[in-house]
Amino acid sequence: MNVLLVHAHPEPSSLNGSLKDFAVQRLESAGHAVQVSDLYAMRWKAPLDAGDSVAPQTGAPFRPSLDSKHAFENGLQSADIASEQAKLLWADAVILQFPLWWFSMPAILKGWVERVYAYGFAYGVGEHSDSHWGDRYGEGTLAGKRAMLMVTTGGWESHYDARGINGPIEDVLFPIQHGILFYPGFDVLPPFVVYRSGRMDEDRYAAITEGLGQRLDTLFSTPPIAYRPQNSGQYDIPSLTLRPEVSPGQTGFAAHVTREN
Amino acid sequence: MNVLLVHAHPEPSSLNGSLKDFAVQRLESAGHAVQVSDLYAMRWKAPLDAGDSVAPQTGAPFRPSLDSKHAFENGLQSADIASEQAKLLWADAVILQFPLWWFSMPAILKGWVERVYAYGFAYGVGEHSDSHWGDRYGEGTLAGKRAMLMVTTGGWESHYDARGINGPIEDVLFPIQHGILFYPGFDVLPPFVVYRSGRMDEDRYAAITEGLGQRLDTLFSTPPIAYRPQNSGQYDIPSLTLRPEVSPGQTGFAAHVTREN
Repeated sequence: MNVLLVHAHPEPSSLNGSLKDFAVQRLESAGHAVQVSDLYAMRWKAPLDAGDSVAPQTGAPFRPSLDSKHAFENGLQSADIASEQAKLLWADAVILQFPLWWFSMPAILKGWVERVYAYGFAYGVGEHSDSHWGDRYGEGTLAGKRAMLMVTTGGWESHYDARGINGPIEDVLFPIQHGILFYPGFDVLPPFVVYRSGRMDEDRYAAITEGLGQRLDTLFSTPPIAYRPQNSGQYDIPSLTLRPEVSPGQTGFAAHVTREN
Repeated sequence: MNVLLVHAHPEPSSLNGSLKDFAVQRLESAGHAVQVSDLYAMRWKAPLDAGDSVAPQTGAPFRPSLDSKHAFENGLQSADIASEQAKLLWADAVILQFPLWWFSMPAILKGWVERVYAYGFAYGVGEHSDSHWGDRYGEGTLAGKRAMLMVTTGGWESHYDARGINGPIEDVLFPIQHGILFYPGFDVLPPFVVYRSGRMDEDRYAAITEGLGQRLDTLFSTPPIAYRPQNSGQYDIPSLTLRPEVSPGQTGFAAHVTREN
């Protein structure tokens, strides 16, 4: 199978860099084809702006969504964007790997999402009607592919507990896993998280790569998180709120995962 | 009073640009001093990297936290970082203004946070002991100052309801409001959110600026969100989980706000 690993750490000799190398080797040993987008090494341009089209409309105000749509539909996207979209279309599975900085992905990776996720590619896809509000949240261009986060945190696992001060890790990652991965169609696997990344020794590293290896070996068999598809009848349209009979009374991020999971 | 507005939209004639101009005028009319960090206009460098020190350690691996600490402590930070820190210290209130892109702040603003929030400035502050886990979450360099988000979303308000598909807006914003603003000490005001930003007309715009004007007029009197201070005895240390007697059984982001709020 084809695997794209999008890597967002500035230092090759870091823990993240080592885990990236380990992952590539493990996947290739299993016979997969691997491409790596090493965003810092690529000097990825983070800010979304008018320069994302090779033919920006001069004199007119820049409109982030509509100009993205225009560039996507007319083959006017800058080459770095089109190249990353081609990798996403090529991939059967995508891994986003990053250190959790200020409870989200590093800016350089956020800029990858903003620029590569063009209007018409990752959003603004499909018909809008009384029963179907675009191909999103379980449908879309990237449907049928798998995605997984590989994340390191400086904080301890207990800090990300159900009652931990940082918030539960599944809630901290929900805007990424549900909002960035499930949205354009990915099946999202449970994340691989390394806590307390500043305290590493050979024994811990061995245990971590053992666990990561197992996750990579089962990349195409691990059951995905059971997020509710938007157009499956579980949401009212166009309000896009859960229908009263779906998990009555439940609120918050967890309401968008079926309880059976 | 002194107000810093950090603005992250690429187009001056956008809704965000107009609301920025409105806010500056309103605040100045009330007698406040206002500074604006217009990140796109400043061509703010988004990625955190070794270049954030004016004297990077050649030959040694780049260590994001420790190198930030070294640069901060020794006056070696790049000028753009030091300048933004000075604005934060000058300000009595800080407003972060941005369009919600993929359920978080734009990359250029995330990069502002990552680079300006140096080790020793916004984290790694204060003593670590059995009863005090650093000056953070309610304490820290920016304690005594107020902060507020001004956010626009393309989605409808119902999409961000308690049972809306995007997740409740207070949960979507929790990693920013709690993790980025409350963490270094800010008192965080309820956010000002404009939904369905793509559908704007004169009447809606008038209503929005009316509401925004009221929020700006009460910037220094609105009660902040009642997040629980970390070192107030409500959390076990070092696990940093809520003590069993604090909101027994409650989990998730909402557990970190006192119910009285």
